[in-house]
Amino acid sequence: MCHAHVAAVVRQRLQKEGRRFHSRRNFLKFGGLATAGLALGAHLPATLARAQDAREVIDLTHVFTTNPPTYVLGAVPSKEVLVTVENDGFYMQQWTFGEHTGTHLDIPAHFAADGETVENYPADVFIAPAVVIDIAARAEEDPDAMVTVDDLLAWESANGEIPEGALVCMYSGWESRWEDVEAFRNADEDGVMHFPGFSGEAAQWLLDERNINGIGVDTLSLDIGPSTTFDVHLTVLPAGKYGIENLKNLADIKGRNATLFVGIPRYEAGSGGPCRVLALV
Amino acid sequence: MCHAHVAAVVRQRLQKEGRRFHSRRNFLKFGGLATAGLALGAHLPATLARAQDAREVIDLTHVFTTNPPTYVLGAVPSKEVLVTVENDGFYMQQWTFGEHTGTHLDIPAHFAADGETVENYPADVFIAPAVVIDIAARAEEDPDAMVTVDDLLAWESANGEIPEGALVCMYSGWESRWEDVEAFRNADEDGVMHFPGFSGEAAQWLLDERNINGIGVDTLSLDIGPSTTFDVHLTVLPAGKYGIENLKNLADIKGRNATLFVGIPRYEAGSGGPCRVLALV
Repeated sequence: MCHAHVAAVVRQRLQKEGRRFHSRRNFLKFGGLATAGLALGAHLPATLARAQDAREVIDLTHVFTTNPPTYVLGAVPSKEVLVTVENDGFYMQQWTFGEHTGTHLDIPAHFAADGETVENYPADVFIAPAVVIDIAARAEEDPDAMVTVDDLLAWESANGEIPEGALVCMYSGWESRWEDVEAFRNADEDGVMHFPGFSGEAAQWLLDERNINGIGVDTLSLDIGPSTTFDVHLTVLPAGKYGIENLKNLADIKGRNATLFVGIPRYEAGSGGPCRVLALV
Repeated sequence: MCHAHVAAVVRQRLQKEGRRFHSRRNFLKFGGLATAGLALGAHLPATLARAQDAREVIDLTHVFTTNPPTYVLGAVPSKEVLVTVENDGFYMQQWTFGEHTGTHLDIPAHFAADGETVENYPADVFIAPAVVIDIAARAEEDPDAMVTVDDLLAWESANGEIPEGALVCMYSGWESRWEDVEAFRNADEDGVMHFPGFSGEAAQWLLDERNINGIGVDTLSLDIGPSTTFDVHLTVLPAGKYGIENLKNLADIKGRNATLFVGIPRYEAGSGGPCRVLALV
């Protein structure tokens, strides 16, 4: 992956599509990260109590490969074998990848100039009750389907209020396309991708009305594929919350009492990065 | 990091020091990985019951930087900024690193030609009760101090039997040297490193007498620095168990009822890799 090329492509796309970033807006609205941080983690005892009856671990993480679907076409990881058991007595590989590859976290600094980076982001928010919003039926008809406020209210009608510290996940069924890069990116003839995501309003409602830790999706972006304004990223991340993209197996935890463990290496100055997401059910 | 150079250096060191690898010995003794795998994870309900009273998350993970101490001198990660919020609307970095850098896992394939790799290694063993064996006083006198069978028996006399599925960790106090690469590697004039680790006998006893998930250390290697036979690696990994190197903050969980969550991205064909280790106490 040639980083100079990637940066140029991204810059060109952004300019061409007239994307607007207002990374201070929500950051200031929510009183900055320090304030947001203080409330994080208070949910831990309740979350662990919920996890008490778990008997199974379900992996929500795609295998991290050198040919995954990526937001910027072709910006894939590479790897090399450094030594082998046969030749050297032990085996190891070397990896090169951008931080937003595979099943990975978005941390506030990804979209907020003053946002926290991975190594300093509070760790206790990575243990969180899961809420899975199923829009798979709608996504089958409309690839640009969105999680709406109505979807969140309908979930609450059936399941009770979204718990404190939740990681609210969209299940769109998109993971079944993961092995097919073209189908997962689903770009039209103009190169505009089409896949489901949260609506900006739903993200805002979660921040205004509930005390979540973050949101997750089974697609390449928290926003829908054709978004040029990144409303969801710019709502969630500058507010000090995190996002997870390219989750899998959400159907297996839907409607169950699931507690998530998110494990991300402490990448210095990281904007996010590849992680492990395990569900206790 | 030049991988060809690293491989050459490692090969030369191994040949020069006459290291012997017998990666099949313990693998066969323990009936292969498939059998070992069947017993993994059975501890989950008991482990979660132990975690029930946890109220705090302690991070056992060093920040993943471009200048950490490394087993092979100078084989450090590198990173580049691909895009920035200021110039591009969002921020991300690209990383290059060997799999055994920073706080990281060793998975069976690291030392066993037929060992399982990261992406297929069972996930439920990554939730484990912690046992911390404190040899810091001895390590202060002797940098080549080892966790012995007597240390394990002494721990059990004080605390009861090592729990099912435990991650048994050596606390040697070495983490206080982490910011000083030379002090952490502690190489003598011949380039031989001196730091604490497990003894081969202690590792073998844990496999024979208790049902552990893995072992961890706050140093660069499961074996002591001057080891040329890698007895501990060759006992633990071919038996299907895992190791964690370069842990921190073990003193903070010593003697407490701690449950560990180990999060490693599912590196394809991975021999191990950078991970997050969180303790619930």
